[in-house]
Amino acid sequence: MRLTRDEVIDAASAIGGRVRRTPVAEAAPGVWLKLECLQHSGSFKVRGAFNRILAADLPAAGVIAASGGNHGLAVAYAARALGIRAEIFVPEVCAAVKIAGLRALGAEVVVTGAIYADALDASRKRAAETGALELHAYDQREVVAGQGTLALELEEQIPGLDTIVVAAGGGGLAGGVRAAFGGEVVVVEPELIPTIHEALSARQPVQVNVSGVGADALGASRAGQIALDVLQDRATSVLVTDEAIIEARRTLWRDHRIAAEHAGAAAYAALLSGAWEPAPGTTTAIVVCGSNTDPATLA
Amino acid sequence: MRLTRDEVIDAASAIGGRVRRTPVAEAAPGVWLKLECLQHSGSFKVRGAFNRILAADLPAAGVIAASGGNHGLAVAYAARALGIRAEIFVPEVCAAVKIAGLRALGAEVVVTGAIYADALDASRKRAAETGALELHAYDQREVVAGQGTLALELEEQIPGLDTIVVAAGGGGLAGGVRAAFGGEVVVVEPELIPTIHEALSARQPVQVNVSGVGADALGASRAGQIALDVLQDRATSVLVTDEAIIEARRTLWRDHRIAAEHAGAAAYAALLSGAWEPAPGTTTAIVVCGSNTDPATLA
Repeated sequence: MRLTRDEVIDAASAIGGRVRRTPVAEAAPGVWLKLECLQHSGSFKVRGAFNRILAADLPAAGVIAASGGNHGLAVAYAARALGIRAEIFVPEVCAAVKIAGLRALGAEVVVTGAIYADALDASRKRAAETGALELHAYDQREVVAGQGTLALELEEQIPGLDTIVVAAGGGGLAGGVRAAFGGEVVVVEPELIPTIHEALSARQPVQVNVSGVGADALGASRAGQIALDVLQDRATSVLVTDEAIIEARRTLWRDHRIAAEHAGAAAYAALLSGAWEPAPGTTTAIVVCGSNTDPATLA
Repeated sequence: MRLTRDEVIDAASAIGGRVRRTPVAEAAPGVWLKLECLQHSGSFKVRGAFNRILAADLPAAGVIAASGGNHGLAVAYAARALGIRAEIFVPEVCAAVKIAGLRALGAEVVVTGAIYADALDASRKRAAETGALELHAYDQREVVAGQGTLALELEEQIPGLDTIVVAAGGGGLAGGVRAAFGGEVVVVEPELIPTIHEALSARQPVQVNVSGVGADALGASRAGQIALDVLQDRATSVLVTDEAIIEARRTLWRDHRIAAEHAGAAAYAALLSGAWEPAPGTTTAIVVCGSNTDPATLA
């Protein structure tokens, strides 16, 4: 069954008080920025992580995930907040600063394998041994429902909201928002990572190549089925160039003093570049979804 | 006559639509951050700049100010928005990046004199010649009233607000907030720049030494009389160490992904360091008042 708004409402009840109700800021008449970049752990991912963990019968082994990026940070943050054990598997290419960030959150970090897929395989083997709860980055029902809670906040924060514009990797956030929200949903991806775009065309997840500035956070090579089921025929898919993403990120810092990672600026890039434009007289929320970036690169 | 709430309300009407209604974010139960660091030009100073300019009969020569910092940026921003000429005088020690920032906003920049006081003198001589409207950084009635509009927003954004905690240099923002707000006002300064603290003790502006991490934005060596009149006997004065300011700035980035300059973190430092603490059960707003900082220094 397709993910429902009721499941997102239940997720909001479950995680309320554990995630931030991030603020909105008006960027232009009728255009609001949802500052999810100010969320705990620096991205929306904690919403899904909390919801998945709180919905589970938690094993003694705690939780396990594979990711040196936003998902890993979110799982580590949520586990620390709940006082449970987290093992995070990252590939050998993972930057030392990310490993340090995970350790600072109290996670046990296992560095293994050449690429992400290797670390994921290793984490699955480990979970089979220990019984730890696996948290997928985007294709678990409770994860997608948790991400969707952002849309419920937006409905309350911006009366009369017509459209939510959101970046997508595997589609966890976009799918959750689509399930929760009654208005239009615009899904933005880099031209170099058209994961959802290609899946919507093929009407099923397909393998895509991953490259460009958004690869670290939007680099899912295959769409999530849960997200795809809810997005199919019910969302507008928009692609943006890397140049547009870079410019949107610069603009967010220069004109708004908002620190965003490239992926976090992708939705705004759709508007700024003209790849997508709102219908006249409508009200739009652009989700700035992550800030896990080296601030030295902002200016 | 002491600056009144009505003057601040008039200022809000005058500048409405030209300044951002910056968002608030809950940092802890009963503790809100006012994200004025997201304001146009990177600080609250545009509020006073717009109000001063819009209240004046504008001369053909436009506006003039002395400052390579937040005040200069705000005057340049407001002048560009209103389509008028701005001359900004800065001393020779002014960093090239700040001069470039002023020029990017369309200001004519005059580099003159060894220190700020020299640039100020030169700007006054120039204003006497050209008839340009002078904008003082903090001791003009319309400037102080403009800064106070921040408090009116806070009243609307946080029902039941008891206390506003705000950093002070010459006292423009603190004085405006005090004039506008019915609750408690806490004025925070670095121990190394106790301008308002000493003036409140002496019951008149006195000359203080200026040093430390807050000097670039809180470095007024003498309190404004307009601010002092409204603050005397009606505000709590708190001093914080530079170490506390540095730690608060780091915390704002690490835990909240808010980019603040040192001065912008001073008010939060009072809370985090325990130099000041809210009464139990009360609701507090901490003003994060500026973000004109090199982002490379945040992490």
